[in-house]
Amino acid sequence: MPLLPEPISDLIHAFQRLPGIGPKTAARLAFYLLRADSDIPEQLAQALLQLKSATSLCPQCFNITLSSRELCEICADPRRDADSLCVVEDPLDVLVLEQTGAFQGRYHVLHGVLSPVEGIGPDKLKIQPLVERVRGGGIREVIIATNPSMEGDATAGYLRQQLAPLGVRLTRLARGLPVGSDLEYADQNTLLRALAGRQEL
Amino acid sequence: MPLLPEPISDLIHAFQRLPGIGPKTAARLAFYLLRADSDIPEQLAQALLQLKSATSLCPQCFNITLSSRELCEICADPRRDADSLCVVEDPLDVLVLEQTGAFQGRYHVLHGVLSPVEGIGPDKLKIQPLVERVRGGGIREVIIATNPSMEGDATAGYLRQQLAPLGVRLTRLARGLPVGSDLEYADQNTLLRALAGRQEL
Repeated sequence: MPLLPEPISDLIHAFQRLPGIGPKTAARLAFYLLRADSDIPEQLAQALLQLKSATSLCPQCFNITLSSRELCEICADPRRDADSLCVVEDPLDVLVLEQTGAFQGRYHVLHGVLSPVEGIGPDKLKIQPLVERVRGGGIREVIIATNPSMEGDATAGYLRQQLAPLGVRLTRLARGLPVGSDLEYADQNTLLRALAGRQEL
Repeated sequence: MPLLPEPISDLIHAFQRLPGIGPKTAARLAFYLLRADSDIPEQLAQALLQLKSATSLCPQCFNITLSSRELCEICADPRRDADSLCVVEDPLDVLVLEQTGAFQGRYHVLHGVLSPVEGIGPDKLKIQPLVERVRGGGIREVIIATNPSMEGDATAGYLRQQLAPLGVRLTRLARGLPVGSDLEYADQNTLLRALAGRQEL
């Protein structure tokens, strides 16, 4: 005898396919939605169905944009500096950087990082279009903002190889102690980077 | 300028309406689904749309069941003891108890607990149908399995008042130390209950 009616177990299974959602959370969400006003599951369902059909990648920076647009809003905005390019792993990273309001240039989204273990080589990422974009001219600085992880660093190293011959300034986001953190809880690698990158007071 | 295309921000907002999902988790889920095979969001959307239309409450125990069924699978199963009734707060509690395989009787789902603060009185719960079900006869024991919380205890107390005159045996799930736990980390109330409910070795 199945313990749960199929519509509920189907929903629990569908939730479990999402990252960070285990069987218990999935069941809690499903049973919450059973009790909730029916507009809550309906709104979520409609948003899910819209997601892929109404979005596409900007052909210049490969950020997610409305499929009705030619270029994304940032690439199409003439007030953004055209000579400064920030290279990130994922569209979510663009959002996070935009929220700081500190970067006025444009972006290039790689859609991943190099990872030999997972079989992700340069051809699986938007690296060739980046090289061509920089070669096209008009770009003075490329800020490589891949994550401060092993794969992020390896990807940054590969990009340096590819872009250095093109004569642009290449920079990488600073490593150090996160603001508001406690020295006592910093891991050793972060502390080493913070020491090595120390600045004049 | 909005930072995100509408289809993504709509999905983030829809996820944020779920319990335990904050803005960061919602954004992570939405960007994961953007990258994922399109059958993942589609399957979730279909399951959400099916949820309410294909399920209803069993008219006897008020557990969730397929809307195509007359009684739920447990109420309709002649092998289940008809003389023993377990009263729970939510359909999820039925699932948890069924997974133990230790209870062979039937259930009654209250769909909540008494909570004067939130304006939930006896008329908002399935208490009257429970009283009528017990008055209908054939039930020997009612196990009150509301949560070991203040509201759960208050609801159990109210149910005792209502059901005691009907001459059935009323029991409540045992309170004590959880199996595999450590005395050192037990809270005082649990320890007091464990002492008071101590049993012969």
